[in-house]
Amino acid sequence: MIRFESDYLEGAHPSIIKKLEETNDMQTEGYGTDPFCSSARERIRKQCGNADVEVHFLVGGTQTNLTVISSILRPHQGVLAAVTGHVNVHETGAVEACGHKVLAISSEDGKITADQVRQAYEEHWSDANHEHTVQPGMVYISQPTENGTLYGKEELQDMHETCRSLGIPIFLDGARLGYGLTAKTNSLTLEDIAGLVDVFYIGGTKVGALFGEAVVICNPAWRKDFRYLIKQKGGMLAKGRLLGIQFDTLFEDGLYYEISKYANELAMKLREAFVKKGYGLRYDSYTNQQFPILPDVHIEKLKEKYSFEFWEKTDASHSAVRFCTSWATKKSAVEALIRDIEVL
Amino acid sequence: MIRFESDYLEGAHPSIIKKLEETNDMQTEGYGTDPFCSSARERIRKQCGNADVEVHFLVGGTQTNLTVISSILRPHQGVLAAVTGHVNVHETGAVEACGHKVLAISSEDGKITADQVRQAYEEHWSDANHEHTVQPGMVYISQPTENGTLYGKEELQDMHETCRSLGIPIFLDGARLGYGLTAKTNSLTLEDIAGLVDVFYIGGTKVGALFGEAVVICNPAWRKDFRYLIKQKGGMLAKGRLLGIQFDTLFEDGLYYEISKYANELAMKLREAFVKKGYGLRYDSYTNQQFPILPDVHIEKLKEKYSFEFWEKTDASHSAVRFCTSWATKKSAVEALIRDIEVL
Amino acid sequence: MIRFESDYLEGAHPSIIKKLEETNDMQTEGYGTDPFCSSARERIRKQCGNADVEVHFLVGGTQTNLTVISSILRPHQGVLAAVTGHVNVHETGAVEACGHKVLAISSEDGKITADQVRQAYEEHWSDANHEHTVQPGMVYISQPTENGTLYGKEELQDMHETCRSLGIPIFLDGARLGYGLTAKTNSLTLEDIAGLVDVFYIGGTKVGALFGEAVVICNPAWRKDFRYLIKQKGGMLAKGRLLGIQFDTLFEDGLYYEISKYANELAMKLREAFVKKGYGLRYDSYTNQQFPILPDVHIEKLKEKYSFEFWEKTDASHSAVRFCTSWATKKSAVEALIRDIEVL
Amino acid sequence: MIRFESDYLEGAHPSIIKKLEETNDMQTEGYGTDPFCSSARERIRKQCGNADVEVHFLVGGTQTNLTVISSILRPHQGVLAAVTGHVNVHETGAVEACGHKVLAISSEDGKITADQVRQAYEEHWSDANHEHTVQPGMVYISQPTENGTLYGKEELQDMHETCRSLGIPIFLDGARLGYGLTAKTNSLTLEDIAGLVDVFYIGGTKVGALFGEAVVICNPAWRKDFRYLIKQKGGMLAKGRLLGIQFDTLFEDGLYYEISKYANELAMKLREAFVKKGYGLRYDSYTNQQFPILPDVHIEKLKEKYSFEFWEKTDASHSAVRFCTSWATKKSAVEALIRDIEVL
Repeated sequence: MIRFESDYLEGAHPSIIKKLEETNDMQTEGYGTDPFCSSARERIRKQCGNADVEVHFLVGGTQTNLTVISSILRPHQGVLAAVTGHVNVHETGAVEACGHKVLAISSEDGKITADQVRQAYEEHWSDANHEHTVQPGMVYISQPTENGTLYGKEELQDMHETCRSLGIPIFLDGARLGYGLTAKTNSLTLEDIAGLVDVFYIGGTKVGALFGEAVVICNPAWRKDFRYLIKQKGGMLAKGRLLGIQFDTLFEDGLYYEISKYANELAMKLREAFVKKGYGLRYDSYTNQQFPILPDVHIEKLKEKYSFEFWEKTDASHSAVRFCTSWATKKSAVEALIRDIEVL
Repeated sequence: MIRFESDYLEGAHPSIIKKLEETNDMQTEGYGTDPFCSSARERIRKQCGNADVEVHFLVGGTQTNLTVISSILRPHQGVLAAVTGHVNVHETGAVEACGHKVLAISSEDGKITADQVRQAYEEHWSDANHEHTVQPGMVYISQPTENGTLYGKEELQDMHETCRSLGIPIFLDGARLGYGLTAKTNSLTLEDIAGLVDVFYIGGTKVGALFGEAVVICNPAWRKDFRYLIKQKGGMLAKGRLLGIQFDTLFEDGLYYEISKYANELAMKLREAFVKKGYGLRYDSYTNQQFPILPDVHIEKLKEKYSFEFWEKTDASHSAVRFCTSWATKKSAVEALIRDIEVL
Repeated sequence: MIRFESDYLEGAHPSIIKKLEETNDMQTEGYGTDPFCSSARERIRKQCGNADVEVHFLVGGTQTNLTVISSILRPHQGVLAAVTGHVNVHETGAVEACGHKVLAISSEDGKITADQVRQAYEEHWSDANHEHTVQPGMVYISQPTENGTLYGKEELQDMHETCRSLGIPIFLDGARLGYGLTAKTNSLTLEDIAGLVDVFYIGGTKVGALFGEAVVICNPAWRKDFRYLIKQKGGMLAKGRLLGIQFDTLFEDGLYYEISKYANELAMKLREAFVKKGYGLRYDSYTNQQFPILPDVHIEKLKEKYSFEFWEKTDASHSAVRFCTSWATKKSAVEALIRDIEVL
Repeated sequence: MIRFESDYLEGAHPSIIKKLEETNDMQTEGYGTDPFCSSARERIRKQCGNADVEVHFLVGGTQTNLTVISSILRPHQGVLAAVTGHVNVHETGAVEACGHKVLAISSEDGKITADQVRQAYEEHWSDANHEHTVQPGMVYISQPTENGTLYGKEELQDMHETCRSLGIPIFLDGARLGYGLTAKTNSLTLEDIAGLVDVFYIGGTKVGALFGEAVVICNPAWRKDFRYLIKQKGGMLAKGRLLGIQFDTLFEDGLYYEISKYANELAMKLREAFVKKGYGLRYDSYTNQQFPILPDVHIEKLKEKYSFEFWEKTDASHSAVRFCTSWATKKSAVEALIRDIEVL
């Protein structure tokens, strides 16, 4: 069985394993105050254009989302997010468990627009009984989205200007940020993002690390006491250096970009194969997740040799499915899959 | 600088690093459903006397505590714990953030007694206005305690019988369980513990792993839907196998016990050195944490070469401090420290 | 200005004011343990067919909803409700503030069907990653709905059977229950309701009382420790007898039904007037809330003399608005309004 | 049976009942936006020396406490309070249910000192691991305290200066504020209080109203969006005018002070009787709650004719008990009790 069902099927990039091994005996302070974390913070800051940003390391995505959102919102505020957003559908109500409603905005492809945010804001404030409804307190977007799609530079600038004018911070979930930054259709650098959102995170778990997400707080307004929240929500790793070591390695010589690009290239090959075969694509993704729409019989056929994720029924005899590539995907695996697609 | 301030100063036992390296390329399903987790679960179950227990793997201690406690209590219930308990003092209010009061019980050495639990229970239920107060819903104990002390078999049996008769489950925090199980004064096996508490966890972070805690749910009453809570609270590791691999290694050939015993032996040498020198001990610990009371001038002297944790002032010119050993502590480091103690 | 914008514009039915006055000097115990509460409980129990039910009194609707829902759900569970449900849109995220997601179900008229509940349940449990999503833990329905519509007996029986088979309790919000019980299209008695749902409440605030909601817990499974939750959520009135006195009065000689019927009759007169004039009705309501669709110019005209609530734009030049009647609405006010409608 | 067990045994002062009756038919907007609330706000503002304060009306004390505290604290912060404080012991964990730890400070008589607050603050911030502990985010005090004692002007000024210098807001629970303002040992006016704390509330439930607490937000920093929190926590009364009418009546001609003074005078007579008889007083209260220490046999004797609250055992054969007076206590009842005390 060759697996394509997610981008967290293997361990970590070998450079990380090697670094963990080399540093294993060193003694360091705990909780992210060690030299590896400092170095990784510095590298990330540099990638953000030497911006005045604060960097924290957490273990996983749901934890990161709930911690950032808890830190920003007051009790009566909710977070605006695409109805498809990870915080709305795949975190077992983690945000609600912290007391906040996810204010879902309709979306066809995982993205929401600045206009939708403005509309939600205006609907709230123009309601005579707005105190009886949840106040929009922040915006959550994903880059790439859960559907593999990307915000372009202009779109993010629009969102930035709209949210700034409304006084609403933007939090960008970058669980797969590497695949976004290196997509051939991408128009945003880390520096751009750092200038356009209030808080974002650079995903490690799905991009070469064993685990780990680097939260970057761009807006000083949201920095106060963030470490308390990491601790309270259970996200402060005792051996914090493990996070530092991993991000230090990923950002030492561009490894993060290199492996993301590699995965995207394999994904593009898959995309081409599906398109060439005449299959539709559920979402127009140029990142490491591909969502072809296949006849159910072909899905059954492919399942004999490959694992991938069922996404949704599209009609009586077709379904969209998800194939993921990653730094660890073997070219030979993709080639084998393509051959099998060609003869479906 | 030689460090003794905690038991999470280094990476992981080399066997774990080696296993992570060997398995790095393998593809597995996520979220703890992989073969390594299954194997580790089986090994732990076996150590619990082949008991009918359910085993889950989480990343860290605070996360584990808040997840287990949230899973058991109803909204109006609180958790009885020693005033010194980790959940009461060192988790930034994680339990309260989940909605529950920690009902603190006085303690001199980190332990609480079955009688204290009974008394708290009776005080609650005999109060004419008990509905205006938080109902004791569970008991939290640590083994070893945060002060290095241990519950003996009879004490835990008393607690078990009392709690069973009161209808209150017991949750045992075993962040440092290995050091308890292998202390020379220990009278409890894993099998004993599995028979006497409702839920407990076997700490990995402080006992040889990079990170990881193995929750063992002994009482079937508390198993339902536990994985939902792990996910909601941000504790479900995408690459769950990392936890499986580590616990599988720790329990394959008794490594967990072996390295704990080693750390305890070094701690006993330190203890002897302090006692021999005429220093008092703040707590009577036979585990890997030692709490000598030193003249402040001697503390300053030792600080020149060693790091250790300030615990509390005991009088105008003395303080209790904490020295920890672990699987990674070098004998030579302990010997050096002892020589320096002798000439203080 | 004659007001029709809500059903809580005046004080209480004069019988209640009189009873409050008469009993004012009596000394009673607090917190709902007084003889008035006992008597009111007994009367309500009798109205429920002498069923084995438990009755509690709370002050307001949002408070009641959040207390009941908190009492029933475990942390990872959410409440299924119509997208228009009060808990979803008009309680400032009260349910989320207690940690739970409202799982919104689409609805045209405020009602949801047993099939929709079953579908939501099946979607959850058939999802391979259901542990990553909020588990449906209960159903919330309103009778009458926020749109004035009613569940019929068969519909509630279907819901009952479906939910029983799925193991999901039903909570019925009866903030305006009186208007439902006495609507000319109604097919459900209090006894029916008590037999078909797990928990419901009989609204007082909007049906003749100064304030107050009577929670009826039909299913013994949900009774345990409910008073603790009332207290914790801030709903335990010190002078609990005020609630007892009011419900005792409302249910002494059928006053609750009588005044509800009166309000419905006035609402029907309004309905006829709107229909006769050729206006559409946004919802097909036979209860005390009427939702005519008027030309915006006519709305402006009526606003000169009457207050009523804007509901929603229906097209460029029309809007739905809400007119409410209550026990306190004067016939002369309705007649005046009808005359003005006729000449619009 | 003559009752003295609490100060909420009867309805409301007759002037309030009369006003409710007179205004019963009037139509007003809901949710506290009516003219009665406006008038009551104005009167309270005037009593606060025409200060720039914001006034809100809630139904009960626990609700008020949890709403104010939720509104002020961030998730990782707790509230400093006397160990005897209502929020710590008699609200079923309402504050914790909103996510916050009550940081209990030892107290002999219900009061805490500015020094204790400073010490708690310094202990937190001097802890190397302060991010692992709950940050003191506000101070909660009661006036009078739950033990009937009072803060003097200097004490409150000290608290004010300390808290201001530490950047920690003060919230004063005035559930029985009237009895404090009119005690013969009192040194604080409403105007003083408004100048020395950030938020406080004027209790109505225990001082002449059917129910109701008037929250006064003195510090503009804590005003933003407070009404959202009232609604979310279930405290926004639909017929908000009921609160306005009551506070308007209480503050129209000094009724609030007059009835409080009356209750205090009766309490002083009781105090004298107990002292004269040679009984100790558990707390030195000059307000409407008296806590004599009686031989248990005398308690049993008095129980035959009077109800009062058991407070605590003071030795093998004595207990402290609580007697409360209120606006509604009859002089004849106090005289009867005194006669019975004299012949014990």
